[in-house]
Amino acid sequence: MRVITLTTDFGSQDWFVGTMKGVLLGVNPKATLVDITHEIPPGDIRAGAFALMASYMFFPKGSVHVAVVDPGVGSERKAIAVKTASYTFVGPDNGILSIALANEKIKDVRRLENEGYFLKSVSHTFHGRDVFAPIAAHLSGGVAVSKLGPKQKGIVQLPWSTPAISRNRINGEVFYVDRFGNAITNILNTCLAGKEAEVFIAGKRICGVKTFYQSVPVGKAVAVPGSSGFLEIAINGGSAAKSLKLEVGTAVIVR
Amino acid sequence: MRVITLTTDFGSQDWFVGTMKGVLLGVNPKATLVDITHEIPPGDIRAGAFALMASYMFFPKGSVHVAVVDPGVGSERKAIAVKTASYTFVGPDNGILSIALANEKIKDVRRLENEGYFLKSVSHTFHGRDVFAPIAAHLSGGVAVSKLGPKQKGIVQLPWSTPAISRNRINGEVFYVDRFGNAITNILNTCLAGKEAEVFIAGKRICGVKTFYQSVPVGKAVAVPGSSGFLEIAINGGSAAKSLKLEVGTAVIVR
Amino acid sequence: MRVITLTTDFGSQDWFVGTMKGVLLGVNPKATLVDITHEIPPGDIRAGAFALMASYMFFPKGSVHVAVVDPGVGSERKAIAVKTASYTFVGPDNGILSIALANEKIKDVRRLENEGYFLKSVSHTFHGRDVFAPIAAHLSGGVAVSKLGPKQKGIVQLPWSTPAISRNRINGEVFYVDRFGNAITNILNTCLAGKEAEVFIAGKRICGVKTFYQSVPVGKAVAVPGSSGFLEIAINGGSAAKSLKLEVGTAVIVR
Repeated sequence: MRVITLTTDFGSQDWFVGTMKGVLLGVNPKATLVDITHEIPPGDIRAGAFALMASYMFFPKGSVHVAVVDPGVGSERKAIAVKTASYTFVGPDNGILSIALANEKIKDVRRLENEGYFLKSVSHTFHGRDVFAPIAAHLSGGVAVSKLGPKQKGIVQLPWSTPAISRNRINGEVFYVDRFGNAITNILNTCLAGKEAEVFIAGKRICGVKTFYQSVPVGKAVAVPGSSGFLEIAINGGSAAKSLKLEVGTAVIVR
Repeated sequence: MRVITLTTDFGSQDWFVGTMKGVLLGVNPKATLVDITHEIPPGDIRAGAFALMASYMFFPKGSVHVAVVDPGVGSERKAIAVKTASYTFVGPDNGILSIALANEKIKDVRRLENEGYFLKSVSHTFHGRDVFAPIAAHLSGGVAVSKLGPKQKGIVQLPWSTPAISRNRINGEVFYVDRFGNAITNILNTCLAGKEAEVFIAGKRICGVKTFYQSVPVGKAVAVPGSSGFLEIAINGGSAAKSLKLEVGTAVIVR
Repeated sequence: MRVITLTTDFGSQDWFVGTMKGVLLGVNPKATLVDITHEIPPGDIRAGAFALMASYMFFPKGSVHVAVVDPGVGSERKAIAVKTASYTFVGPDNGILSIALANEKIKDVRRLENEGYFLKSVSHTFHGRDVFAPIAAHLSGGVAVSKLGPKQKGIVQLPWSTPAISRNRINGEVFYVDRFGNAITNILNTCLAGKEAEVFIAGKRICGVKTFYQSVPVGKAVAVPGSSGFLEIAINGGSAAKSLKLEVGTAVIVR
């Protein structure tokens, strides 16, 4: 129970993340802190939820995952801690935890209401520092999730469009664009395992499905089973998002 | 005495910060290193001083705070370590430490002149690596500040404009713009505690003072007591800096 | 053998680096992880090799250096671990390790083929997470490099243009531009030690060689012996790259 991960939209240009870490280490000096990313676009709960889902299960069992994309900070939205078989998740109850938790067996959901585990003085605008950081540090130090507040049934779910699958065709969409310009779809790699397939966008054949980026010449498009578990569309040595004008929501058809 | 924080303008695209950390861990392998930020605009001592002030007191007592925004590196400017009741600060004596230190009780100021605590070969352009990193690591390992060089009286002060306060009116200004486009002013939250107030910019009423961002509808301006201790102007779900054309130095009047 | 450094082009906007760290800590919970940089331009092996070269020797002996700029991931390119007198280097065998290793006495080169040290399921697109991270963690935990796979003779070398030196003249070029806009050349500081010299670009005298940036007035160009061991061209308080239109490959003549 030593690793604490951080996924936020706080960016790296200001002192926000560093300050959270000061609070974390003040409560639990033995915690090992790992940044997943702090460059989630401001307020983009969906992107934060995807990043958390794609990374959390690579951490040692017992890790505490903190995710704070929290445009409703200070309002009526709830803050929660969720215990699963292998991890504890902490964040606002606005959907940011929901995509990761869809893979997990939830054992306990608690509302963070026991102010004894907060920072002494809580601001209305920076619960990352004043609520989520101290709570996560206490959890990583061994405090039971049951101490944090009353039980809650279920959590807020983020809408997640599952692709429509018929016998010869999958209707999916782009769900995330990464720094390389690779467009990650909502189509699970496992849907395509072992089958020949071709990708169509806006009625036009774009590429076949191969196993790695350099399967095609430089500058050419290729779809590959992505490392996060979903089919992604790439350009060898280029940006598929730019060249093919792909963005979150673009319809992707696989035949 | 294990935590060492780093606040610099070295950015993250090159190897500068990583190299400092190599030196730090070479001297004190048990140090816990925390980045406050490395994205201070190149040479912007004021922004670095503000980031340090807003974060340092959230770290455990005994932490060593290193701040390096150092356009005068290699010239006649002095390098200093400053011991206060709770922390030790290390950096160039160019004002970068002064805003944080205004809150602290200074016990000792030393000029960094004992080369025995420097890296063996000191460049003229990268004292972050060659002077400040090894000094900070020695301090965190238990070396007394008095060993580092001769005593110095006082430190270079950064100009800091305090708002003009009359009975019904505060004349302040924007002091920092964060990644969300929130404009942080030099008006202390405590000046407004419990009072109704309205914010004027360029003679025009902009908004009232509320407690959190979502107190107003999406797209509307709001002023809130900020988490760094100063009044800030925000737009719910947007960038106040962009929409209201706020920048460092913009006059802000509160009535 | 506790420090593991990371140099990649994975950026900080996605979850890639965080995920590598999860894997590293899963294998070796006691590892100290240090980012050198993750902002190498996508696929720019040369820039990655330069960053690694400029930083690796500032880390404690026994550190494991992981460098992943890997456009050929999943293809026929080999993955290697290289043991030297002081360090172990891990990465694709595409030249990224070669500039740093030119300074080192190589003791053993191994191809990473023992899948027992990989993650259980290896993707075709993210060997940083699935191969290089677990290997580095095992190495830092004490696994001998000889266990990782068969010996290999030599490694892929990156082309590196050495300047042409005649009695009164050095013909070099810009090799790297840093965040400050300083243009780092391939001309070793030691070539100029103690001599007066002047820098010419496109037939025009640009500046003399001084010892630090503020040797000249604000806005003026200056060349200084850089902290990475190479002559660099700077503008006091500005960006030499922008003002003088310098980029990687720009010819630089020193007389």
